[in-house]
Amino acid sequence: METIYLNNRQIQAVLSVPECLGVIEIVFKNLHLSQMPPKIYLDVPDGDFRAMPAIFDKTAGIKWCGVQLDTKKQKRKINIFAKVLINDVDSGELLAIMDGEAITAIRTAAVTGVATDYIAKKDAKVAAFIGCGNQTKYQVEAILAVRNIEKLHLFDLDPERCEYIGSQFDIEYEVFKDVESCVRDADVITTLTPSRTPFLKHAWLKDIVHINAIGADAKGKRELAPCVLDNVDAVIFDNWEQCSHSGEIQYRPEKMDPYSKCHKRQEWTDLGDVVRSEKDLTGYNQTVFDATGLAVEDVATARYIYQKSIT
Amino acid sequence: METIYLNNRQIQAVLSVPECLGVIEIVFKNLHLSQMPPKIYLDVPDGDFRAMPAIFDKTAGIKWCGVQLDTKKQKRKINIFAKVLINDVDSGELLAIMDGEAITAIRTAAVTGVATDYIAKKDAKVAAFIGCGNQTKYQVEAILAVRNIEKLHLFDLDPERCEYIGSQFDIEYEVFKDVESCVRDADVITTLTPSRTPFLKHAWLKDIVHINAIGADAKGKRELAPCVLDNVDAVIFDNWEQCSHSGEIQYRPEKMDPYSKCHKRQEWTDLGDVVRSEKDLTGYNQTVFDATGLAVEDVATARYIYQKSIT
Repeated sequence: METIYLNNRQIQAVLSVPECLGVIEIVFKNLHLSQMPPKIYLDVPDGDFRAMPAIFDKTAGIKWCGVQLDTKKQKRKINIFAKVLINDVDSGELLAIMDGEAITAIRTAAVTGVATDYIAKKDAKVAAFIGCGNQTKYQVEAILAVRNIEKLHLFDLDPERCEYIGSQFDIEYEVFKDVESCVRDADVITTLTPSRTPFLKHAWLKDIVHINAIGADAKGKRELAPCVLDNVDAVIFDNWEQCSHSGEIQYRPEKMDPYSKCHKRQEWTDLGDVVRSEKDLTGYNQTVFDATGLAVEDVATARYIYQKSIT
Repeated sequence: METIYLNNRQIQAVLSVPECLGVIEIVFKNLHLSQMPPKIYLDVPDGDFRAMPAIFDKTAGIKWCGVQLDTKKQKRKINIFAKVLINDVDSGELLAIMDGEAITAIRTAAVTGVATDYIAKKDAKVAAFIGCGNQTKYQVEAILAVRNIEKLHLFDLDPERCEYIGSQFDIEYEVFKDVESCVRDADVITTLTPSRTPFLKHAWLKDIVHINAIGADAKGKRELAPCVLDNVDAVIFDNWEQCSHSGEIQYRPEKMDPYSKCHKRQEWTDLGDVVRSEKDLTGYNQTVFDATGLAVEDVATARYIYQKSIT
């Protein structure tokens, strides 16, 4: 078999966010069967390169990507480069080399969708998005795929980016000038920024709310004020160990205490346990999903794209 | 700039082993300036996949490769798949995707060449090679580039493979039926097997000899009997930490003791220190170079190939 090469455009033509939800649900159902060493970070000025290898379902693969803050634009713009390579475990053969930007955006959104579907209340109506960068369009698609959302609330330091996102969906949307007013009436909040300063406060939240904290995926990054993690009922991780180094809980003093997973005041659990129905989250009103992005998500998504492309 | 793609044939046309010696010498001179996290291994039945990221001289890169023993052929044949990706650190841009098999063979041989040049006696005349697989031709080129070798001694479980290697060089060679007679008169010995059982004994060695132990590069692999490491004067590592996990010294009880680097009975040192003239090995008659292969070697070699290819 020849190695196939797929670019971002070809990948977007093959896989939509709603379809990827099924791939990601299978990933979290079988996460305990995967092999996934910790991501490796190589530090460079104003960013990092990351190697993310994993084995999932007879596929060995790696994402190699770079994240750089654009210092000329107040460190706001993030330049992301990414490639995904996958091999068949049995033959060792390199199946495909794919652009990784579209895979990253689609699978990250699909993870948010699966988490929201398993955790958020069924009657969620207002979805807020903080940060309207390249990934936000996909994230909106994911939330719309799992809940009957009636209105989008959008915030970004650049309001034009909010308008651009809002205009792409056939649904009411409102652009806000500050985070507080953007989230005040929201049932589901998704944070998608490269922030290193917490900006989301607990006092602003509804009594029943689900937060997808997607931005923090490396040391030093954070979006939620400590009072949010202090006061919500449950914190769900894509991967507890990875989150304790790179996610929102990297700043929590109890993060490395294994007993803290059964914290007295709140439930700490992995999304895999929730998806496998080993944890029932009914009864928790304020929930946070702390996502750092897993190599198995890339490998499984790339394998799915590969299979669809060759058949 | 467009990403360039180079296959093994194109790489071999651009870079010879003797030329790569210069690249590798620079790598070891500047090893302390590189960033190189430990290799990551993903285990599969009869082999593994490896992710090897590094930053060297403004180039971030990764080798993604797979090593599999062919169970149908008495686990003797090794199937290696490898790709190398390199990025410019300043722009983040992906410069090149290259086949990794030729890079691996050429740079591994060049490391042996540099180590032999810095460690072995100048008047070495007989070079023995144990294991005549795909990499051996390159390894012979490396030794011939640094010493005035008059005769090659060759051993492999398959004598035909020895004949194939010997016939490619314009120099006397002899094929041996056992390891002992192959190494008995050798001044430089290079072991290049996937062995998991030690096969080289100290009693067989000349009083003045340099051994390049190249085969052991993963947990469970070994070529040298304990008596060799017990009795030689100096052991030189490509990278002490990596060797302590994957190299010949992985079985040594003193490997994890930092003081063991200044072992009472023998010198333990890194090749980088030798190349930077921080260690003088004059006066040591029996020496072992324990090489596991470093990600920086791949990244530096790929960057060199890239520069030659675009100019």
